[in-house]
Amino acid sequence: MDFYPVAIEKLIEEFAKLPSIGKKTAQRLTLHVLNLPEDEVREFAGALVNARGTVKYCSVCGNFTESETCPICSNPNRDKSIICVVEQPKDIMIIERVKEYNGGYHVLHGNISPMQGRGPQDIRIRELVSRMKEEVKEVIIATNPNIEGEATAMYISKILRPLEVRVTRIAAGIPVGGDLEYADEVTLSKALEGRTEI
Amino acid sequence: MDFYPVAIEKLIEEFAKLPSIGKKTAQRLTLHVLNLPEDEVREFAGALVNARGTVKYCSVCGNFTESETCPICSNPNRDKSIICVVEQPKDIMIIERVKEYNGGYHVLHGNISPMQGRGPQDIRIRELVSRMKEEVKEVIIATNPNIEGEATAMYISKILRPLEVRVTRIAAGIPVGGDLEYADEVTLSKALEGRTEI
Repeated sequence: MDFYPVAIEKLIEEFAKLPSIGKKTAQRLTLHVLNLPEDEVREFAGALVNARGTVKYCSVCGNFTESETCPICSNPNRDKSIICVVEQPKDIMIIERVKEYNGGYHVLHGNISPMQGRGPQDIRIRELVSRMKEEVKEVIIATNPNIEGEATAMYISKILRPLEVRVTRIAAGIPVGGDLEYADEVTLSKALEGRTEI
Repeated sequence: MDFYPVAIEKLIEEFAKLPSIGKKTAQRLTLHVLNLPEDEVREFAGALVNARGTVKYCSVCGNFTESETCPICSNPNRDKSIICVVEQPKDIMIIERVKEYNGGYHVLHGNISPMQGRGPQDIRIRELVSRMKEEVKEVIIATNPNIEGEATAMYISKILRPLEVRVTRIAAGIPVGGDLEYADEVTLSKALEGRTEI
């Protein structure tokens, strides 16, 4: 359909494979790349190959790492008695940014979604259970507060119940700075349910 | 601020340099790349370097090409007596898609914009004038119908006037399938001005 040289069509196609990048955006990005200095393009290409080649998952928690264990798991100052369970490595970064939590993590690399045929065996729940040694006192489940995240949280709490570890769930409610008027009914109901004394 | 391995941070940074890609999208794209098979990432990186390395501009019209002249300029079936002037190579693809035009092109690689300090010497107007040999009968100016595009069109028509070549401008008006109600006043005024007998 188009009349671009093959090498351009190929790059457009590659960009268009990325999530949320449509054909039009892929074209725009490609034309941008063609106007860049050649060494900048090489740097970009190198970063792609390098990131994919050197980054692996921490053998303990499943976080991104460039060595065997991630910087958080190998940090002796982190409290190993608390494990915060998240769906994806990026969730670790989000929680770390708050600078309030000093425990460890466990990345599930997904959630339970019967609708999409993902069961407990498809995510790292077995690995979580095998980390339940004496020193672990609390597991905080920080999966997303949506249907899949809640189902995952329920399943994990059921599995861990016999192991005599405290299992908690992050609070759902009205965001700080939010407005009651714009809160949906489920959030509002969660906020009421989770009310605390003041 | 973040706790990603260096190689990941680097790739996020590279994605964020692209136009219309913010920090959040750059993160999402990077995490997507980390989950791709390694050979797909290599293919993407190769496409980047290859596109930038092999694509140059046609020595005649300024279109993208992988050889000395572009496929349109070297096609003996194209009518060399008409030249359609556009701002960017991508405009050629847009016009080609209509499959109605069979002449040649001339890419200005920009437009005249006194506001941004771009004058006639910054775009390929000299090259256009030097193409005005006997065989050229008509120059269709297809720069964008905005301030810069109009200024560029006016300038070119003034320059070409002494050369006894027919200079035309693509029509501005209500888009087909559009609605008068939503047309802005300038477009409506152009549509009235350019009215034709039916």
